[in-house]
Amino acid sequence: MAANSSDFRYTYFKLWAKGPAAALALQHSGLEWEGAFPEDWKALKPTTPFLELPILETPSGTIGHELAILNYIGQQSQKMAGVDLTEFAISQQLLNQAEDMYQKLSKLKSGLLSGEEADACWTDENEQTHNRNFGFKVYLKLLEAFYKASGGSGGKFTTSGVTVGECKLFSTLHALKLIKDNILADYPELAGFYDRFAGEDATQAILKGEGKMPGTFDQYFKF
Amino acid sequence: MAANSSDFRYTYFKLWAKGPAAALALQHSGLEWEGAFPEDWKALKPTTPFLELPILETPSGTIGHELAILNYIGQQSQKMAGVDLTEFAISQQLLNQAEDMYQKLSKLKSGLLSGEEADACWTDENEQTHNRNFGFKVYLKLLEAFYKASGGSGGKFTTSGVTVGECKLFSTLHALKLIKDNILADYPELAGFYDRFAGEDATQAILKGEGKMPGTFDQYFKF
Repeated sequence: MAANSSDFRYTYFKLWAKGPAAALALQHSGLEWEGAFPEDWKALKPTTPFLELPILETPSGTIGHELAILNYIGQQSQKMAGVDLTEFAISQQLLNQAEDMYQKLSKLKSGLLSGEEADACWTDENEQTHNRNFGFKVYLKLLEAFYKASGGSGGKFTTSGVTVGECKLFSTLHALKLIKDNILADYPELAGFYDRFAGEDATQAILKGEGKMPGTFDQYFKF
Repeated sequence: MAANSSDFRYTYFKLWAKGPAAALALQHSGLEWEGAFPEDWKALKPTTPFLELPILETPSGTIGHELAILNYIGQQSQKMAGVDLTEFAISQQLLNQAEDMYQKLSKLKSGLLSGEEADACWTDENEQTHNRNFGFKVYLKLLEAFYKASGGSGGKFTTSGVTVGECKLFSTLHALKLIKDNILADYPELAGFYDRFAGEDATQAILKGEGKMPGTFDQYFKF
């Protein structure tokens, strides 16, 4: 922190995994921050609160856990949290629905789901099962309905369209699109959200490595 | 909501799984609320935002996702969120570290981890692996260090000791203790946190089924 004038220093691997959502949120927030990729992860790891990245170095100390960092950013402005309790609740639900999808990607990547079970993640539309078994089509269908129920318009779930929940949702949808580019074809409102968010200047800056991160995040989930 | 004078109606299964943390937070918050177990889950399910419980019915609409509900409760008072940004960050990190432990319990319960891999969750102390492979001893050791680094005292991580992160942490530690009662033996600060939180009147009310929930949450994770 001492070496620069930024209030916040954000560190994550050069991968489109758990890091991009908070980088997007920081870039959209207007906060003074700088981003970094770890130079020596082995040396850095024991200094992190939970032996993992991302971390955000702040005047309140170093914060670990992606969702903790996102919510800390949300505390900085209504634009990032939502303008009222209703928008706050929308943002938080997007955050956690997107995290459920991320956990599914993580299980696939780790080989915890394989064969027919793994295939079903991409094809199954059964909503009657336990939510832990939902495939991506069920998650996306629920988000499509949630957009309508929340009064979304113009590709935004909230007034700003860039609450921390929307940053996390975009990040997760982007991970899915890197795997299957047409995955949103049956979900026009979600596709509209994705395209609108992707077109924002701050988003483009992160996607192109021209924002406060020193480069691009590369595809991590490939199947 | 119309049938009673409470602002909030909270619904979850009669199980010590994803529901007790928010019930604890509501009971500690002083908010006007009432709790319910689902009378007919099959009929209720399609009316929930994400086809899952818990849900919290609020003046802002029905909120799904445990962590979204906890953070919504946190927005109601500093006691539940933390008195400042530093305490907010502590609470959020506890929330998410506890959720990581919960996800591990969930994987064990679902049979995604088995044999040696499942055994290692209870015995392994290797911090050098990827965080997704951490066993409970690593998570607990990190929380013990986090208590000290956060300036915890008197069994509290924060001034109130009942922030939403502490409610979630207690809930997860309780799930672990129901499986292995001595699991906190090597972590005196965490054991102190658990005992202090357990002794609070609001906690006892939930544990005994004498709070706003209509009964007790029964053990869900058994191995």
